[in-house]
Amino acid sequence: MSSWFAPVYFEDHTFGQLSKWIAEYDPSIIYLLVDENTHEHCAPLILRALDIPQRIELIEIPAGEEQKTIDIAIHIWSALTELNTDRKALMINVGGGVICDLGGFVAACFKRGIAYVNVPTTLLAMVDAAHGSKTGVDFEGLKNQIGLFNPPKATFVHDGFCQTLSKREFTAGFAECVKHALIADKELWHAFLLNGQPDPDLIGHYIEPSIEIKKQVVESDPLEEGRRKILNFGHTVGHAIESFFLEHAVTPLLHGEAVAMGLIAELYISSRTCGLSEAELLIATDYIKAVFPIYRIPERNFDALIRLMEQDKKNDGGLINFTLISEPGTSIVNFNTDEITLIESLAFINQHANQPTVEFKPSGSSATSI
Amino acid sequence: MSSWFAPVYFEDHTFGQLSKWIAEYDPSIIYLLVDENTHEHCAPLILRALDIPQRIELIEIPAGEEQKTIDIAIHIWSALTELNTDRKALMINVGGGVICDLGGFVAACFKRGIAYVNVPTTLLAMVDAAHGSKTGVDFEGLKNQIGLFNPPKATFVHDGFCQTLSKREFTAGFAECVKHALIADKELWHAFLLNGQPDPDLIGHYIEPSIEIKKQVVESDPLEEGRRKILNFGHTVGHAIESFFLEHAVTPLLHGEAVAMGLIAELYISSRTCGLSEAELLIATDYIKAVFPIYRIPERNFDALIRLMEQDKKNDGGLINFTLISEPGTSIVNFNTDEITLIESLAFINQHANQPTVEFKPSGSSATSI
Repeated sequence: MSSWFAPVYFEDHTFGQLSKWIAEYDPSIIYLLVDENTHEHCAPLILRALDIPQRIELIEIPAGEEQKTIDIAIHIWSALTELNTDRKALMINVGGGVICDLGGFVAACFKRGIAYVNVPTTLLAMVDAAHGSKTGVDFEGLKNQIGLFNPPKATFVHDGFCQTLSKREFTAGFAECVKHALIADKELWHAFLLNGQPDPDLIGHYIEPSIEIKKQVVESDPLEEGRRKILNFGHTVGHAIESFFLEHAVTPLLHGEAVAMGLIAELYISSRTCGLSEAELLIATDYIKAVFPIYRIPERNFDALIRLMEQDKKNDGGLINFTLISEPGTSIVNFNTDEITLIESLAFINQHANQPTVEFKPSGSSATSI
Repeated sequence: MSSWFAPVYFEDHTFGQLSKWIAEYDPSIIYLLVDENTHEHCAPLILRALDIPQRIELIEIPAGEEQKTIDIAIHIWSALTELNTDRKALMINVGGGVICDLGGFVAACFKRGIAYVNVPTTLLAMVDAAHGSKTGVDFEGLKNQIGLFNPPKATFVHDGFCQTLSKREFTAGFAECVKHALIADKELWHAFLLNGQPDPDLIGHYIEPSIEIKKQVVESDPLEEGRRKILNFGHTVGHAIESFFLEHAVTPLLHGEAVAMGLIAELYISSRTCGLSEAELLIATDYIKAVFPIYRIPERNFDALIRLMEQDKKNDGGLINFTLISEPGTSIVNFNTDEITLIESLAFINQHANQPTVEFKPSGSSATSI
C-alpha cells in the first residue's frame, strides 16, 4: 500500500522528475487524462519534457464539475478496455479537482486498480484536491457521493500553471489556502490579512505551506476517522451551496467559490457555538468578501440547502456534523448546531453578499431568477 | 484497515454470532442485499436470528451473473442515497458470488466506503467468493473488469444453506474445492478421488479445509502480486469460457462450470509445459468429467476465446499469464504458453465433453447453434 499522502515533487524541473519517475515505474502504457483546457495549455509542456519510450494516449473529457459523473467514468473504463489495458498501465491526471478526483477513482476500479499520479493545474488542486487520496464522482446531486480513498503514487506540482488560469479560477483556488490557514496556521492567516488579494506571480510562497498543513493532517488520520475532519471547515455548508448551484443555477459556482461562502457561514456558527470572538469573525468575513465573490441565496432555498447538508458524509446518527474554529489556527471537529443558528448562518452570507443576483434555471412551474 | 482475510464464523450458531457482531459494531442501519432466491430461502432464517434494534432494509436484485453490472451497482447507490444512508451503515451480502462481489463493490464506493459482511449461500461463495476481498462487477463482457480489493468485516458461513441449492448450483461450487486441492493440498485431492461425487450432507468436512487453503494463500499475498495468482488455476481459460457463454449462449454457464472446463484445459497445458505427468492429467480429467458437465466449444470460436484470455487481469506485457501445476498440490505462477498448445487445450476439453450441444443466441448473420 502506498502512503496515504503521496510524495510531492515541487521544484524547478518538476517534469524532469516526472520523466525520471516514469522511467523507474516502467508502465506498460501511459494515459494522460485531460480536459480541453489542460489539453491546450498544460499537456504540451508535459509531453515535451517526457523522455520515455512508452506509448502515450490522451483521454480528453469536457471541462467542468458537471463532468464528474459515473457516466464519464464508465466512458473512460470503456476506452481502457478497448485498448486492452493491463494492470501495469499508468494514468496521469492533468487538471484541477475534477480531473484528479475522477482520474483517481477510474484508476482505483479498473482491473482492481492501476497506478496514477497527479499533475494539478489549478491552484485548488495544487494545494488540496491532488493530495490526500480522496477520489470519486458526484452522484444524484451530491458531491463525491461515490468514491473511495486511493492514493496517487506521486504528485507533481508546477506553480507556473497558475499563469494559465483565469482570474476567477485562480482566486477560487485560494479559498483552500484560506481554509488551511484558518484551521491550522495563525501566522499564515496573518500573512494573508496583511497581503490582501493573492498574486499569481507570488503564489508559490503560499503553495508549499498550504500543502504542508494538508500533509500533516492527512498523515495523522488518513481515513478521516477524527482529526482529518478539520479539513472540512467551510465544506459542510460549502458543498451544499455547490450542489445546489450545480443543479439549479444557470452558471455553477466553482468549488472554491462555494467554499468561500461556506467559510463565512461556518465562521458565523463558530462565533455562536464555540467561542470565536466577534472581532475575529468580522475581520475574517471582511477579508473573505474582499477576495472572493459572495452570492445571495434566496431565503426560500434555505430549507433545500439544509436537506443537502443532511447528506454530508461526515454525518453520524442523523445530526449535521460541523468542523468549527475557536480562533484562527485552532479547529474543533464533531460539532452540531441547531437549525436556527444554521439558518442565521445562511442569512449572514446574504448580509455580506457582494455580487449581482444569479440566474437560476427554469424548473417546471417554479422557474425563478434571483 | 481490516485484515485482507476477514474472520470467518463457521459454527452451529452462525447467526447468533452475526447478531452479536452487529450489536458490537452498532451500525446506523442495516441493508440485506439479496436476490429472489436468497430472499425466499435464506433471509428469513437470518432475520429470525437477529436480535438487534436497528432498522433493516432488504435490497433485492434479480439472480444471475448477468446482474453483476455497473448499472445494478448504480441502482443500489441510488437506493442508499434515497434513504439518506450515512457512513455507519452496514451491508450484509446474502447470496452467492454475484451478491458478494457486487455488494462488496457497492459498499466500497458509497461515501468512500461503508462496512459490509458476507453471508455466503452457495457452496462456491462459502469456499471462495466470500473470502479474500476481491469485489467488482463485470463490464463489456469481461469478468470483474471494474472492481477493487475491499475486505468484508467478517464472513458468516452456514453450510446448511447448501441444502437450498439445486444440484447444478451445488456441484458447480465444488469446482473451487477441486481447484484448491489441486493447487495446494494433495491429501484433499486424494480424498476427493476416493469419494467421487460430493454430497451436500457431508460437504461441511470439505468447506473448512478449502477456506483454510484460500486463507493461507491470501494472507501470504493479499493484493495478488505473486503467490496469490495460484488461486487463478483453471480461471484464465475458465473466465474466457464463462464470458463467451454469457454473451453468446442461450443459457449461461455457472462460474464453477466454466472453471471445471478451465481446469481441464489448464491441466492439459500443465502436462505440456510444466511437467504434470500424463497419468495425473488423465486421472484428474476423468474425475472432473465424472463430476461436472463439460460442454463442447465449436472450433470456430477458439479464436474469440483466446482474444478474451488476452484481457485477463493477470497478464503483463501482452502475454497470457497462466497458473499451472507440476503435480497435484504443487502450483507455479507466471507461465506463458504458445498459441498451438492453447488451441490443443481447448480441443482437449472437447475430447472430454459429456454434454449435449449448447444453443447459442442468433447474432446478426452469424446465428449458430452447436
